[in-house]
Parts: sequence; C-alpha cells; structure tokens
Amino acid sequence: MSTAPISRFTVPALSELPEDIRSRIEAVAERSGFVPNVFLALAHRPDEFRAFFAHHDALMEKDSGLTKAEREMIVVATSSANDCHYCVIAHGAILRVRAKNPLISDQIAVNYRKADLTERQLAMLDYALKVCLDAGRIDDADFEALRGHGFSADDIWDIGAISAFFAMSNRLANMTSMRPNDEFYSLGR
Amino acid sequence: MSTAPISRFTVPALSELPEDIRSRIEAVAERSGFVPNVFLALAHRPDEFRAFFAHHDALMEKDSGLTKAEREMIVVATSSANDCHYCVIAHGAILRVRAKNPLISDQIAVNYRKADLTERQLAMLDYALKVCLDAGRIDDADFEALRGHGFSADDIWDIGAISAFFAMSNRLANMTSMRPNDEFYSLGR
Amino acid sequence: MSTAPISRFTVPALSELPEDIRSRIEAVAERSGFVPNVFLALAHRPDEFRAFFAHHDALMEKDSGLTKAEREMIVVATSSANDCHYCVIAHGAILRVRAKNPLISDQIAVNYRKADLTERQLAMLDYALKVCLDAGRIDDADFEALRGHGFSADDIWDIGAISAFFAMSNRLANMTSMRPNDEFYSLGR
Amino acid sequence: MSTAPISRFTVPALSELPEDIRSRIEAVAERSGFVPNVFLALAHRPDEFRAFFAHHDALMEKDSGLTKAEREMIVVATSSANDCHYCVIAHGAILRVRAKNPLISDQIAVNYRKADLTERQLAMLDYALKVCLDAGRIDDADFEALRGHGFSADDIWDIGAISAFFAMSNRLANMTSMRPNDEFYSLGR
Amino acid sequence: MSTAPISRFTVPALSELPEDIRSRIEAVAERSGFVPNVFLALAHRPDEFRAFFAHHDALMEKDSGLTKAEREMIVVATSSANDCHYCVIAHGAILRVRAKNPLISDQIAVNYRKADLTERQLAMLDYALKVCLDAGRIDDADFEALRGHGFSADDIWDIGAISAFFAMSNRLANMTSMRPNDEFYSLGR
Amino acid sequence: MSTAPISRFTVPALSELPEDIRSRIEAVAERSGFVPNVFLALAHRPDEFRAFFAHHDALMEKDSGLTKAEREMIVVATSSANDCHYCVIAHGAILRVRAKNPLISDQIAVNYRKADLTERQLAMLDYALKVCLDAGRIDDADFEALRGHGFSADDIWDIGAISAFFAMSNRLANMTSMRPNDEFYSLGR
Repeated sequence: MSTAPISRFTVPALSELPEDIRSRIEAVAERSGFVPNVFLALAHRPDEFRAFFAHHDALMEKDSGLTKAEREMIVVATSSANDCHYCVIAHGAILRVRAKNPLISDQIAVNYRKADLTERQLAMLDYALKVCLDAGRIDDADFEALRGHGFSADDIWDIGAISAFFAMSNRLANMTSMRPNDEFYSLGR
Repeated sequence: MSTAPISRFTVPALSELPEDIRSRIEAVAERSGFVPNVFLALAHRPDEFRAFFAHHDALMEKDSGLTKAEREMIVVATSSANDCHYCVIAHGAILRVRAKNPLISDQIAVNYRKADLTERQLAMLDYALKVCLDAGRIDDADFEALRGHGFSADDIWDIGAISAFFAMSNRLANMTSMRPNDEFYSLGR
Repeated sequence: MSTAPISRFTVPALSELPEDIRSRIEAVAERSGFVPNVFLALAHRPDEFRAFFAHHDALMEKDSGLTKAEREMIVVATSSANDCHYCVIAHGAILRVRAKNPLISDQIAVNYRKADLTERQLAMLDYALKVCLDAGRIDDADFEALRGHGFSADDIWDIGAISAFFAMSNRLANMTSMRPNDEFYSLGR
Repeated sequence: MSTAPISRFTVPALSELPEDIRSRIEAVAERSGFVPNVFLALAHRPDEFRAFFAHHDALMEKDSGLTKAEREMIVVATSSANDCHYCVIAHGAILRVRAKNPLISDQIAVNYRKADLTERQLAMLDYALKVCLDAGRIDDADFEALRGHGFSADDIWDIGAISAFFAMSNRLANMTSMRPNDEFYSLGR
Repeated sequence: MSTAPISRFTVPALSELPEDIRSRIEAVAERSGFVPNVFLALAHRPDEFRAFFAHHDALMEKDSGLTKAEREMIVVATSSANDCHYCVIAHGAILRVRAKNPLISDQIAVNYRKADLTERQLAMLDYALKVCLDAGRIDDADFEALRGHGFSADDIWDIGAISAFFAMSNRLANMTSMRPNDEFYSLGR
Repeated sequence: MSTAPISRFTVPALSELPEDIRSRIEAVAERSGFVPNVFLALAHRPDEFRAFFAHHDALMEKDSGLTKAEREMIVVATSSANDCHYCVIAHGAILRVRAKNPLISDQIAVNYRKADLTERQLAMLDYALKVCLDAGRIDDADFEALRGHGFSADDIWDIGAISAFFAMSNRLANMTSMRPNDEFYSLGR
C-alpha cells in the first residue's frame, strides 16, 4: 500500500473534523471498506466540503433519465480529457461496478469514440466533451442532436451539469495532486 | 431593457420557488436593485442551486488573504479564457465596484498580462489561468513562484479553488446561454 | 488619468512631427476631444503612419455594403481573438457610438456567438474570424455561405480586408504594448 | 504556363487602371520580366493598393539595420506559419536572390529552427514568429533577448512591423486564393 | 468474450498465411495463451507485417540501457497521447507484467507527470512525448537534459526511436480501429 | 557543398557497414549519383535500417492503386505538417521527378488545399493528414468519403499506411536533425 502523500495541502485527522463531516466519511468507509482520498483532501475546508458533496450527490445519486453507469461514463470521459488521475481511476472503478463491465472504463478513458457504446451514449459523451472543452460554442445544433437521441431537457441539463461539476472537481484534484487510493485500480475488474 | 430569454432551460417564477431560495433571491434583489439572472437560471434545480451558492459564498465572501477585488480578478480572467458572457460581464461589474476602478475589468478581460496590476497579482492570475486551462501540468514550480510573492498555502488554495469553481460556473452559463442583466454593463464605470 | 507609457517605443512630441501628420492628428483631437494613442504610437515612423491610416480610411471610412457599425463589429471580434487591448477598447467605444448600443461591444468582445446580432451579422463575423485565425483553409463553402446571406463580392472583400488589416494592427499594438486612452472605456455607454 | 485564375476576385486589365498604378506595375514588369500576380490581384481597389505598397516599400525597401535578405527571411518564415502559397513562393524567390543562397528559402519554409542561420538570425525569427502567432504574450523578456543579439530599438520595430504587415498580406493572399506566378518557383535556384 | 471485429480491414485465417508469419503467430500464442490482435490485423500485408515486427523487436527485445519496463512506459505514455486503444491497453498489460506493478500503467496512461516514477524516468518520458508531439522543435537543450540524467547517446536514440515507431503503430491501430483482446485488460493486475 | 553534420548521432563509414547494407547504399548511389543522407543516418543501427527500408519499399515501390507520384504527395504533405526538413526536401525532389511537375512539391508543402490537384487527390491528402494529425478520430465517414472517390480498401490502407510510416520517419529525421543533401533542392525543377 502506498505511503505517498494524498494531497499537496493539509490533510486533517478524522478526529479533528466537524461531526457531520466525520460521520459522512465514516459512512462511506463502512460501505466501501476504505476512505476514498477525495474526502480527506477536501476536509480541511469544511464549508467547501459540504457544498462540494451536496452538489455531487444532487447530480450523481438522484433519480435521472441517465443511468448511474451513464453518469459515470461522463465523469470518466471528461476527466480523461482533463488528465485527472484521481477522477479517471476512482470513477473508472465506480463505472466498472455500476455497468458490471470490466472493460468499459479503460475504453472510455483512452478514446471514448472507440468504446463499446450505443449511438445514444456516444451522443451523450460528444456533448459532455463539448461542455468540458469548448462550452462557448454550444449552440442549437447540439441540443437538436441530443433530442434526436431521445434525451429530454432534464437529461441534457444533467449531462452538461455533470461535465461542468467535474470540470471543477478535476481542477481541484490536479491542483492538489490528489492521489487515488490503490484499491480503486482493481475494483470491478 | 432586453426581453431576450435568460436561459435555454426552464426559468421558474419566484412564487414557485422553495422558501429558502426565494428569500435568498429577494435579499439579493433588495441589495442590488435587480435580480442577477444566474439566480433565476439555476433555480429550477433547488438542490444544485443551494450547493452552488453555498460553494460560491464559501470562496468569495469569507475572510481570505486575497482581497475581494483580487478574487473577482480571478473570476474575470478565467471567465474570459472560457468565453463566458455572463461571468465576464456580471463579475466585471462587481470587480469595478470592489476595486473602485472603472478600467480594470475591461483590461483583464481582454488580456490580463497588459492590465494595470502588481507583479503579485500577475502571478496570482498566471496560476489561476493554469488551473483553468492546463491543470494537469501544475507542479512544484508553480507553488514556488506563488510563495515567492508571499502567498500562503491557504491563499494558493483560494486562487485555485476559485478558478476551479468558475470552471464549473462558466460551463453552466455557456450551456444555458445565460444572459447577463443589462444593468451589469454600466455598473461601477 | 493614467501616466503609464503609451508605447514601448519612441513617442515623438506633436511639434516634432511632419506637418501633414501633425494636422491630421490635430483634426482628430478636435473631433474627439483627445488624441487616440495609436496616432502617437505610430508617428515615429512617418511613412508607415501615412500608409497605415490611408489603408485604414480606405476600408473603414468609405461607402460600403457594410454599415460603419458592422465594420467596427469585425474589428472588435477579431481584435478580441488576438488579445489586443488597444483595439478592443478603442474600437469597442467606436462601435457603441456607431451602433448606438451600449451593450454590443462587450458582448462581441467576450463571445460574438452569444451577442445580440442578426444571422447575417453572425455569418459576417464567422468569416472575419476565419480570415483572422485560419485563412489558409478558406474555401468555396465560405463564399457560398456569405452569398446566401446576401453579401456581394465587394462586401466579402471588405469583411476579409478589414479582418486582415486588423491582423496587422493588433500585432503592432501588442508589440508596442499600446495603451488605450482612458476616455475610450466609458465612451458611448 | 498555368491558365488558372490568379484570384477569386476581379482582376482588372492593365489598361483600365489609374495611371499611377499602371505605371508602377509596368516598372515592376520591366525590372522582373513579368508582373507578379499580387499587383494584379489588389488593383481593383486602387486606394488599398496604394496604401499596401507604400507600406510594403516603407518596410522592405528603405535602409535598415536588417539586410534585405534578413527582411525576406521574416516574410518566408511567417508566411509559412500562415500557410500562404503566394508569399512563401514569391518571397522565397526574392530571398534566394537577395541571399545568393539557393537552399535557404526551402529550409526556412519547412522549419526555420533547422535552417542554416546564425544565432542572431534565429533570435530574429523567434521574435517574428511570436508577433505572427502569439503577439498578446510579447513581454520584456522578448526585447531583452533581441537586445542581447545586438538589435536596436529600430531593428526590433522593423522585425515586428514586417511580421505584422505580412500577417495582413498573408490573409489577403489566402482569402483571394492568390496564385504565385510560375516564374517564382525556379528564380534564384 | 467480445465478437466485435478486430479491424476495419481484411483479417485472414491463420491457415492462409505464409509459413513464416503463421509460425511466428503460433509461437506468440503458445507463449501468451492467446493471439494478440495486432498480429492478425497486420497479416493481410505480409511484407509490411515482417518489417513491422522486425523493427519492433529490434527496439523492444534487444539489450539496451533502458529496461524492458522503461521501454513499455514510453509506449504507454505516447500511445495515450495519441488516443490509441490497442496500444494503451495491450502495452499497459505488458508494462504491468514487466514492471511487476499493477498501478503504473493506468497512472502513466492518465497523466505520466503524476505517476510513481523516478526523476530519470520522467525526463525519459518528457523527451519521448516531445518526439511524439513536437519533434520539429527538438534541440540541444533536450539532449543536455537527458545526458544530465545519465542517458547515453544510444539510450537517447532508443527513447526517440521507440516513440517514433509507436507514432506509426498508433496510427495503424487507429486507422484500422484495431480492437485489443479482452485478455489484456486484466493481465498483471 | 555543405559540410554541416548530417545527423546528431553516429554516422559510420560505408566501409564499416554490413555487406547487405553497404551494397544497398552503393546501388542507390549508382542510380542517383549521390547517397541520400537518410541511408547514412540510419546505418549505425543495422537491424532498424533493414526493417525501415523493407517497410519503405513495401509501401512505396510495389504496385498499387496509387501512382508513385501520388504516394510521394502523401509524403510531402504529411512531412510538411510535421515540420520535417529532410522528408519535405528529399521527397519533394522525388515527387517533382515522378509527377514531371516542377511546381507541385512546393505547392503541397506550403498548403496542399491550394495546390493544383484533382478532387480525388485532395480527398486522398485530407485522409492522409487526418491519419497524420488526428488518427484517434478516424471514423466511418472518412472511409465513405474515400470510397466516393473510387478508392478501394487496399488504396485506403496504402494512404493511411504511408502516412503512418512517415509519422515515424519524420520523427527519426527531426530527432537526428537529419540534413537533406544539397542535391535534392534543385532536382526535377
């Protein structure tokens, strides 16, 4: 197990954390068997931590026209475009588990255009990548393409909002040199 | 006053909104004299709205080693790099007010390298732009440069976290074609 | 009023200038109430000054199928793509005056695709930006698109020639760190 | 001899041209043995033609701290970066003649960094290319590097102004699909 | 096991192949337990197949100042920069096996700058990526940096030649949509 | 005749080379009147030399649906995109000879889109450049476009495989600073 630092910034001990944050982290640890490093790396800023995870859960955990696996596809594809270690490796693990597919995360991380996806999923990722890399050029044609694949206005918001949220998350992970837990690499393979 | 739509997505009436969101918006309107469109454009998703503004306030309103004007400089410079109408124009107005300088926002929006800034502020914006555009290459040399200008670890977090937050915000504004209120254009000139 | 230098290079006194250049500058000053810095920054090279302004006037002042406001739109959009302080701020002022629209220049400077423009004006700026950024790929399809919006061959020349002229002008302004006069920032708002 | 059109736009007959333009073209033809197509392609706009060539001559023909061959090196290097047929091929010919070197133009057109140049000439082209491609980032360090190679302020202006002038010229040639005369290809080899 | 096609082009049956090619493939199958798809995808062009694998083996199998794991690091890093499914996934497997490290391939594929590497290995990959992405700007400073880490002229050739060879290989894999065998994904984890 | 080094790496004397390599080089010298420097620059690695030229000949010398001139067009266009001195200048010479056209190589090297080519040849080069610069995005539409111009599957392989081979070759030439022989510049003009 690596002993390399998990962040360039302060990582507080669990015992020092506000009660609500500590219990949230303990609940994750119980469910996963380990504490994903993102919880520790953001904990030194409790208000930002609370807003970040509230936002994350509002997008990733609620009911949606996108399956949870599809939402993780967006995370892996955009995080790869942003060269983000933590998010590609951690969310690659979650995607393998959610999609029950041991190949899909590596395929999407390298080049989603060649991955084993439906046309609808490809259109979803094309739009997510445009939000990620070239949002200033989004126009009506993008929305028409998505509607042509049956995505509702709420679905289109979700695709874009997940891409936008991880635009933030990838930058936080890269600026902290956030290290993914070793456990993620083999999960779901 | 323009009657163009303020977002591609649903904009609920104030009267339909949850109480906490409605009263937050009314407080802003009372203070500013108008409701900035970002509050209306995000309101159809109450949980995301709450997390977004909690995160915003945690970064932009609290005490920090960066002045409020400096924090707005980061917003204007990175939002310009992302071609984001709403954020350049709305935060350009806020920056003019906070810096008591009618020229600074236009200067930073066009090319912050030629703006009337101190060397320390230039270093701050160089780092903010690297987080914005090339976060995967952030390395020790970036941190040394910032420390050489007297920035603390907390300051460096703030610069990066503001740039990261607006990486999200710019993408939300671009995907919604969020329209800045006409009032912003002349504020603080 | 700023006392920062207006150019990295020599700025001659008005009294040292050849008669034709001095009287041209005095005429501008009388009309505008101040001497735009570009006249001073180019004056140390009288032959280049004369050719530059003769070329400018041949494109920007004559009768044309494009309104004067439309011609200034081309200048603002391409100068923004070139990160040129002087031209975005000075021609932004002229555009506000010519279009009698206090919002249009900031909109075009940030992202002309989201500005309050007609489809015809958007097509004009798409072509101007292609001349600005990727002229080696101009082909028949570009001309067909413009003709589809009713532009004549002379109009198409004008759009491209203005974009080309400011490709030069923006580079001169950036290499001299030419400073826009403070007066421009508020003109026409 | 090719019969392909030399421009997408109107090419007037010599006999239709204003006297000053016709005699300028005839003088060139007498000296060169042929009429370079740029004179014909710009002639339908007499005022722009006069300003363009006055500007050209002010930069390329006068006495300068740069040799005429060095000035043509700037033209070939920047025109190649702009994918400009007319200027690479026509000015490549002029450079071979002026430098009395049959290899230098092809070397600079493909990759000036590998061409048979002095360190001083490389520094000149590095700056010319920065003006060509990234003028918004020109800063003090660029000027120091040039002064370190003995360039005066006037020389630095000339390098940048030539690069800026051909930024315009390349775009005019590309937008017209200006065709280089067949004679240029073999001149000076 | 996937039944998707392994190439856009003809994939001959083993029995149809020239004897030397068939026996080479059978030897690989015996050693690995399966036939890596690259052998099948290139087999329809026997002369190109022979040259390709002779070149591959001359670089990857011989004795060298670089370990076999280090050579595979170069393949994974450059193939990721080229978005090449086959090479990232197949050589990622080989790298895990050769380095006896289940994490290293995913780390390098996402962002080698954040991977668990020595300074010397980082310098090796910096150069390999420059050969991959920007070879026209390689200069003396690159060679000095490598020599500073103890690389010999032969080592520097090897780094660059491996990067160059996989520049070809990645393009062949991408143009054929070459599919990595499912076995590679889990090998060495 | 230049006496500059032809490579950054070891260039063995002909007499030191293995018999098969020496006689191959002597045959070329007899046919061409000089030894192209690529043969000398690669000779210090005999196994790589043999594979490289076997691969080259399999693509460039065999019968194919593409003429030899068309194959050289691919080399010149992609080598120009890679800023490769040796390949643009040496293969530019070969293309002039094979096409019996003294203008075509310079035209393609500067901007193949403006060269005197058929629509079919332009489609061939568009695909070759996509393999060269953006192979990860090759998709069905590219193949349909080529088939629409009458290219067979074997032709499409040849276009892509030549582009891929010179992706390697250009990188080897750039990393060695391989110098084209002076003879190439004037050949076929």
